[in-house]
Formats: sequence, C-alpha cells, structure tokens
Amino acid sequence: MNIDRHVSLNLNIRGLEESPTLALNERSNELSKQGIEVYNMTIGQSPFPVPTPVVDALKHHADKGKYMPVKGLPELRKEVAEYHRNKDGVEDVAENVLIGPGSKQLMFMLLLVYYGEIIVPSPCWVSYIPQAQIIGRNVRIVNTTFEDHWNMTAERLRELLESEHDAYRPRILVLNYPGNPDGLTYTVEELKEIAEVARQYEVVLLSDEIYGQLHHKGEHISVARFYPEGTIISSGMSKWCSAGGYRLGTFTFPDDLTWLMEGMAKAASQTYTSVSGPIQYAAIRAFQGGLSIERTLWHTRRIYATVANECAQILTDAGVKLHPPEGAFYLFPDFSPFADKLRDKKGIEGSTDLCESLLKEKHVAIIPGDAFARPPTELTARISYCNFDGGKALAASENIALHEDLPDDFTEKYCIKTINGVKRIVEWLSEVD
Amino acid sequence: MNIDRHVSLNLNIRGLEESPTLALNERSNELSKQGIEVYNMTIGQSPFPVPTPVVDALKHHADKGKYMPVKGLPELRKEVAEYHRNKDGVEDVAENVLIGPGSKQLMFMLLLVYYGEIIVPSPCWVSYIPQAQIIGRNVRIVNTTFEDHWNMTAERLRELLESEHDAYRPRILVLNYPGNPDGLTYTVEELKEIAEVARQYEVVLLSDEIYGQLHHKGEHISVARFYPEGTIISSGMSKWCSAGGYRLGTFTFPDDLTWLMEGMAKAASQTYTSVSGPIQYAAIRAFQGGLSIERTLWHTRRIYATVANECAQILTDAGVKLHPPEGAFYLFPDFSPFADKLRDKKGIEGSTDLCESLLKEKHVAIIPGDAFARPPTELTARISYCNFDGGKALAASENIALHEDLPDDFTEKYCIKTINGVKRIVEWLSEVD
Repeated sequence: MNIDRHVSLNLNIRGLEESPTLALNERSNELSKQGIEVYNMTIGQSPFPVPTPVVDALKHHADKGKYMPVKGLPELRKEVAEYHRNKDGVEDVAENVLIGPGSKQLMFMLLLVYYGEIIVPSPCWVSYIPQAQIIGRNVRIVNTTFEDHWNMTAERLRELLESEHDAYRPRILVLNYPGNPDGLTYTVEELKEIAEVARQYEVVLLSDEIYGQLHHKGEHISVARFYPEGTIISSGMSKWCSAGGYRLGTFTFPDDLTWLMEGMAKAASQTYTSVSGPIQYAAIRAFQGGLSIERTLWHTRRIYATVANECAQILTDAGVKLHPPEGAFYLFPDFSPFADKLRDKKGIEGSTDLCESLLKEKHVAIIPGDAFARPPTELTARISYCNFDGGKALAASENIALHEDLPDDFTEKYCIKTINGVKRIVEWLSEVD
Repeated sequence: MNIDRHVSLNLNIRGLEESPTLALNERSNELSKQGIEVYNMTIGQSPFPVPTPVVDALKHHADKGKYMPVKGLPELRKEVAEYHRNKDGVEDVAENVLIGPGSKQLMFMLLLVYYGEIIVPSPCWVSYIPQAQIIGRNVRIVNTTFEDHWNMTAERLRELLESEHDAYRPRILVLNYPGNPDGLTYTVEELKEIAEVARQYEVVLLSDEIYGQLHHKGEHISVARFYPEGTIISSGMSKWCSAGGYRLGTFTFPDDLTWLMEGMAKAASQTYTSVSGPIQYAAIRAFQGGLSIERTLWHTRRIYATVANECAQILTDAGVKLHPPEGAFYLFPDFSPFADKLRDKKGIEGSTDLCESLLKEKHVAIIPGDAFARPPTELTARISYCNFDGGKALAASENIALHEDLPDDFTEKYCIKTINGVKRIVEWLSEVD
C-alpha cells in the first residue's frame, strides 16, 4: 500500500494528542516495572468494587444476547428518571432519558448532532475540547481563576455573550460539578445566577453531574432545578457506582430539547446501536438503589472526604494554594507561591515541567494543569487521591458507624500511599524553599 | 427555550431516515398487539442462545468494573488474531486487532478517521450509507445485478476507477460476504480478481465478514488472503455467537494500515473509551472456541441451511427469481417475473409498495430492496428466515448426528412460522397469477 497517510487521515484526528492522563499513567507503569515505587495519582477511577447487588444483576442477565432498544431499556430509562427525581429533585420522565455507552460517548453524539458553539470553562475535563475538535465544532474556552473557586461565573458568561455580534447563536455551555479536575462545586446562588443568564440568551446547559453523588456531604444540587427547560443532565454509573469499565452513561433532556435526543438516537442507531444488554440490566439494579447501595455510597463519601481533607491540610500547611475539597476524588493545587524558587532552582516554567520534575525526582505522578486547558505557564496540577485499595478501605469503614468520623489512623492504615504521595510533593517543595 | 431547531440541528442528521428495518419491525409489532398473527421476517438477529461457556465467562467476570485499554484487552486481541489465523487462514497478530462496541461503531470510526471516498456495491447493508452521510463523506453506490449474483465484479470496479479524473484518490471499497441482504458470497476467483484491481489502484478493502462463520457449508474465504496488505477484516460476535446485544466487534488491520487503527484508537479514547469490561472477558471465551462452541456452530449452520433451502425451493417453484442460499440468514428474491401482474392487479410500482401490500394483505413483513440501496422500482426484498425459536431448534438438532441431514419434518416442527411466512408470499403471488 502506498496510500499517503498524510492525505487520507482526517486532519481533525491527526491533530489529536494522546490523552495526557493515559500518557503519564503509562510512564508511571514503566517506572514501576523497573522496580521503582511510584506514587501514581493520575487516574480518575473509583478504587471501590462494584456494589454486590449490581454484580449479581449482571450475572443474572448474562444470557441477554438480543439487540436492545436504541434509547435504552424502558425499565432502565424509568429508573434513571426516578433516580434524578429522588436524588436531585428535578422533574424527569422515562421518555426523556437516553442511555449510551458512557456519558463521554453521549457528549460526543450531542456535539455531532447539535449545530452550535461549545463554551467550556477551564480548568475542564480533558475530553470536551478534543471531542469538539474531531467534529470540527467551535470551542470557546473561558478561563476561570483560583479566586473564582475555579468556577464559571454568571458575569463571565454574560460578558462573553454580550461581546458577540450574534448573541443568540446556538450555544452549549458545559458545566461539570463536583468538577474534574478541581473537586469543587457551585453554590446554589451561583447556579441560579448562571441559570438566569443562560435563560436570557437561550444557551443550552450540558450539566455534567457524573460526580454528583460524590459530593462529600451528599449535598449535590443540579442546575436543572433553576433552568429545567434548557438543561441536559449528564450522568452514569462510572463514579458513584464504581463501574467505569461497564460503560454506561445517561442523558436527561428537558421537554423542549427532546428533538436533540431524537437526533442523537438516530445517529446512535447507525453507530453504536445500543448499550450492551446485560450491562443495562445491571444498571437497572444500580439506579434502583436501596439501602445496601446507599450505605456503600455513604461509606465511600466518608472515605473520600477523610483522605481529601488530610491531603489538603498537608498541602495548605506547606503553603500551597488550595480550596477545601468538596467532591469527586481530585485536588487542584496551585503552586504559584513557589513559582520564583521553582524557576530559579529547578528551571520549572510551567505545569508540564513541574509534573515532569515531580515524577523524575519524587516518583509522584500527577497531571499538569495544561492538560485541563489551563495556561501552560500556570503552576497548577491535578492530584487524584483515589490510589488506595478501595475494597480494604470500604470493609474497614463498614465497621465504623456512619455518624462517626473515621479514626485518626484510618488513612495511615488504608490510604498510606495517597498520603505519602502528597507528603513527597511537600518534601519536594521544601527542597527549593 | 426558543432555540430554533432548524438552525441548530446538524443537517447531516436531520436528513437521516429512521432505519426501515426498525420501522417495519415496529409496524409488525403493532399488528401483533391487535391480535393479528404476523409473520415478521424483518429482523437480522440470530435466534439462537449465546453459547453457555460464553455466558458463564460473563458471569465469572461480572465484577470487572475498571476501565479497559482503548484497543481492547491484550488477551482478547490475541484470541481474535488467532481466530482469524485458524478460521480464515489469514496472517494476523494481536497488535493489529482493534476491539470496539460493535463492528457498526468501528465502521463509523473508520469513516470518521479515513479521509476518502466510500464505494459500496448495492444491494448493501442499511447502515453503510447513512454513516457516510452523517460524517459528510462521499459515497459511490455501484449497482450490481441479479446476473452478477448481486456481487461486485472486478470489471465494474475497474470501470468505476478508470472513469475518474483522479484514479488514485483515497478510497475504501466495502465488501460484505456472506452478504446482507442477499445471503450470497463470492467465489475464490471473484475475490482474487477484485483483489487485483484493488491492489492496482491502492483501494483499501473493508471486508465485512460478520457472517463469515455462517457460510452454510463452513467454507468462508476472506479476500484478505489475496490482498493482505490492503484489507481490513471486520467481524464480531453478533452473528455466529448470537450475541448481537452484547455489542462487541473486531477490526483486523494489515501492517500497512495500522496508522488507521491508531487514529481510530485516538478517536475512541475521546468517545466510547473501550468496550465494556465483562463483555470483553466473555468475548475471550467466545473467540477461544473449542469443541462445545464449534459443535453449536455446526448445528446452527445445518439449521440455517435447511430452512434456507426449503424457503428458496418454495419461492423458486412459484417462479420467483432467487439464487440458491449460501450463508447468513437472508434471501433476496426478485419478484420481477410478476411485475406486470402486480402493477395491473395491485397497483404495485416498486419494492416499498410490494412490502406494504404483503404486510397488509398477508401479514408478512419483509424489507423492501429500496432499503438496501436498490432502485425503488425494482421488485426485490429481503426475507430474514431466522424468525423461529432457536433454542428449541438447536436442542432438537443436537439429537441428530452432524453428518446426517435434518429429517424432512424438522422445519415443520421447529420453523413452521418461517415456512408459512414464505408460503403466504407465494399464495399472495398466486392471487395475481
């Protein structure tokens, strides 16, 4: 074959970089293979096992080999709607729920089907921008700041829209809270203000609430409460249900946007067809919830909160800029107080340098802020504090009543690698101090 | 929300029709609900159960909730490569295998990543053309004829390429054999000739061999044998393994085209991420094969062949033009010998009229040739002869030694609805005769 790959490879694909998360994860694994103890804090994956009732449901339906309805099993769509009504207090009906092979795939289908511009506040999850790039959609990145709590603000949104010649061009604003990479969420007041601007300018909100149930206090609030007619809720079973590898995501549409769901279903019927049947049956069980699943969820939240707070304390005590963690399993520290010293003593000019140096010198792998669309010279990075044995930690937590705090030695016993990883970062900082 | 859906819906999606297969299936189901006995021969789904060892493997790995590698589990890729080496006699290595959530999704990713024109011989499977349409790729439909055995010929391909100003523009030719909708395959000689032209003009072949193992005599030959450097083999577990609803497909690339695989993997990492973990483990077992799975496969082939031949005989005896069935579970009869009478007595002007009339008058649902990119006035249609209880038929077949033919009353006992559906078509034809 002499076909010239430079001619026949779609240029939108050719421009794609490898996911920096995966690249750093691979480099960590290589170091491990060389016998080096690596503190791999790159991966955004729940360390906990899939809840037993969900695994049992999958076993029970393992023989379901027939094609499924494109939008998902009616019973699953019903359970998802009920879940959002119960958990999030938003109006939702089965007919407005779309099931897909991961919320990431559903987002891609949305961008494919919706002919408009995408607004993404940074720092943001690594896939929003490449997805838009693959399809050739226009992306507007809005940089937030540490002082903004890394949140999009109503003022910034209004400013952006008012600066446009065509304020009413079709747009989707992506909000992700509790957020990847920052582990922070919005206040009710902030969500109300954003909802108001979105309503005024008829901006569709894609509300990525995949970490909603991992709000550390169980107090997640959806923006759909304040802008029900224009909000699509994205969720799934990857994070709270620890089943990222199952590949099942959900979108919930308002009545006014079901034409988008229908368009996505048309495209789905020509592409992935439907989510794997046995997995859909397992998901029915997951979204039904109940005491056992709910209790597990409370334990995982308590563990995440405990680890997060301890890591945050260590960093803050060392002088790193960091907001107190609120949800998910990420911290997004800002090392700018050390900027001069890091530049002078280690030649570090930005987040990629910082992470390279940390990996080389301390064998701690974290992801540079650059990967989350932050300015490359900014000294931010994402720490995933979920690199512990979730099975063991969960079993230990289950012996401690839920109204109690976990004992002081809990993290030392069950999450020592996480704590030590963060301590090594501080150690590394002290070397230049 | 006042967002104008006519502005913000991607026009490539807006133009999509609902899949005619699904639409006719739904109408059949509606008639059934009214208490009418419908002969639904629209669906292209294996009626057999997923083999027990595969179901057991899925149960065994039901707790695998972690994210999987984008290209698929290394062990699965190895088994798929071995499978193609053993079954198809083609060179294949694990590193060149890509696992995806259905071969349909992989085809879509290929069209997305490959920047070139798509050549599709008609009659063809319903999704090739809409997929290209969604992405905005150019499609060249090459009409074959009954006399061509509904096959693409080397001559037609050469003619098409030579009529072009730019004979070497990047192109993919899609071949599907045994074929949907025709149930026919290619001879070795035909494949060799096509391979030669493809090589000369550097056309990539996408060889859709999803029905390969359902060649009724187990004599499937891949075109990759004759054009290894330019052929991508598409396969999966939907048809031979009766697990369409599991959603797992495979692509096998030649060394010269692994850059396409890498591009697809990049796009996959930003969209569907990977195939569901437990499903991948089940697939390892499926592709490992072995005596029990192989024996089941031989039984299903014998049943398909028996039903197919009986249906074909009934149609041919009545004067319908039809090639003897060779594989898959479809017949693609040509009713043109009845064209004048059907027009005069029933006002039928094309395949859609024909199928509408059959459904209304005889409650037999089959898919018009129009849906497979045939000229709308042509009187062709696809009959799926898999509307029987596969579990019962398989159990009965298992009591009859594999070297024997199934007894004369087998179809009457186990596939009576299929036979009666075809008989009703003949009855309907006799009304105009």
